[in-house]
Amino acid sequence: MTKAAVSTKEAILNSAILLFNTKGYDGTSIRDISKRANVNPANISYYFHSKQGLLEACLVYFFEHYLKYMEEEVNSIQYDNRKECLKKAIYKILVFQGKNHFLSRLVWREISIDSQIIREITSSYLMKERYLLKRLLEEEEETHPMIYFKIIQLKSMITMPFLNSQYLREVLHIFPQEKYFIEKYYRVLEEWIENIDTEKKKGATTRISVP
Amino acid sequence: MTKAAVSTKEAILNSAILLFNTKGYDGTSIRDISKRANVNPANISYYFHSKQGLLEACLVYFFEHYLKYMEEEVNSIQYDNRKECLKKAIYKILVFQGKNHFLSRLVWREISIDSQIIREITSSYLMKERYLLKRLLEEEEETHPMIYFKIIQLKSMITMPFLNSQYLREVLHIFPQEKYFIEKYYRVLEEWIENIDTEKKKGATTRISVP
Repeated sequence: MTKAAVSTKEAILNSAILLFNTKGYDGTSIRDISKRANVNPANISYYFHSKQGLLEACLVYFFEHYLKYMEEEVNSIQYDNRKECLKKAIYKILVFQGKNHFLSRLVWREISIDSQIIREITSSYLMKERYLLKRLLEEEEETHPMIYFKIIQLKSMITMPFLNSQYLREVLHIFPQEKYFIEKYYRVLEEWIENIDTEKKKGATTRISVP
Repeated sequence: MTKAAVSTKEAILNSAILLFNTKGYDGTSIRDISKRANVNPANISYYFHSKQGLLEACLVYFFEHYLKYMEEEVNSIQYDNRKECLKKAIYKILVFQGKNHFLSRLVWREISIDSQIIREITSSYLMKERYLLKRLLEEEEETHPMIYFKIIQLKSMITMPFLNSQYLREVLHIFPQEKYFIEKYYRVLEEWIENIDTEKKKGATTRISVP
């Protein structure tokens, strides 16, 4: 692709991400995107076929990176370093999301909708993510009885600051795209990871009744 | 209001919640809602003025309940029972969300969008939520240095299963609206609450470097 083509494609994608975030996917038209990107609508058809093609390109770009970081660390698992691998994967994912915070918000927001299109694009990614998170969370010898609950917790903490960036900014005055936030928030997740087995042991002995 | 009026209003609200969830707020028209609810579009204008009025009604209903549970427990805080109050608030909120899982998803999804309308409706609720969560998380004598990070973690765990209910269903085969899930997931949050101070103490002594 020529340099001009790359920059046209990028301009279209960046405009799409921005508009999907502020006006929603359904509230944004190809016309809005072409106007904002300052390109001819025909260019959007040429590179992405349709608005759905644009959303698909965003999801694919995001998940290819996101899963690569997990996969790299799963491949590095050796005896006794599993937690370190999990921490490294989380750190890389936080940094990636900080750098691509508009895209991250769009992706986490769009996959929360219950639509056929989204399901078709994301289901294989999410199945792979489940497999990789299990490998990173679980000792090989034993299945963690609460493994899926751990996945829910971990995923919720990874995504929330980016999905709700305007909440963090406006209510908590925290800026999730800043390096300072990433470093500090990483420590919170690191402590959570450190506590995983402690909880398991504690869970086996103490049972506190539901109020 | 007559019984017929209540059921018309409810039919409109339930249809709106369902359609906003599957087609998105921007992808749903008043016409779609009136068709689904089997009412005249004029009824929607009469009770809710507009589509935005409908969304507003959903947000208000949700947050009035959600904050009430927190407020009740903040008012019950006495010497040494703060954690128990926090646990009770979380439990009530989980039960409420399980019972209103379509509404919960809609609310958490819509407030993640960066729009003026949403900001106007939710900002005072979210400021109040911040105040109440601080009261429930923090010892009166000392400010927790990571209080906002604790709020991010707690909020992410409270919302994620309901926002991503189709992910839980289809990828993890967990059904977030079921009582069984609520009870089990509550234990996960309870353990997280139990660990709050432990982490604080640990955080003061051990510093693990960023990978």
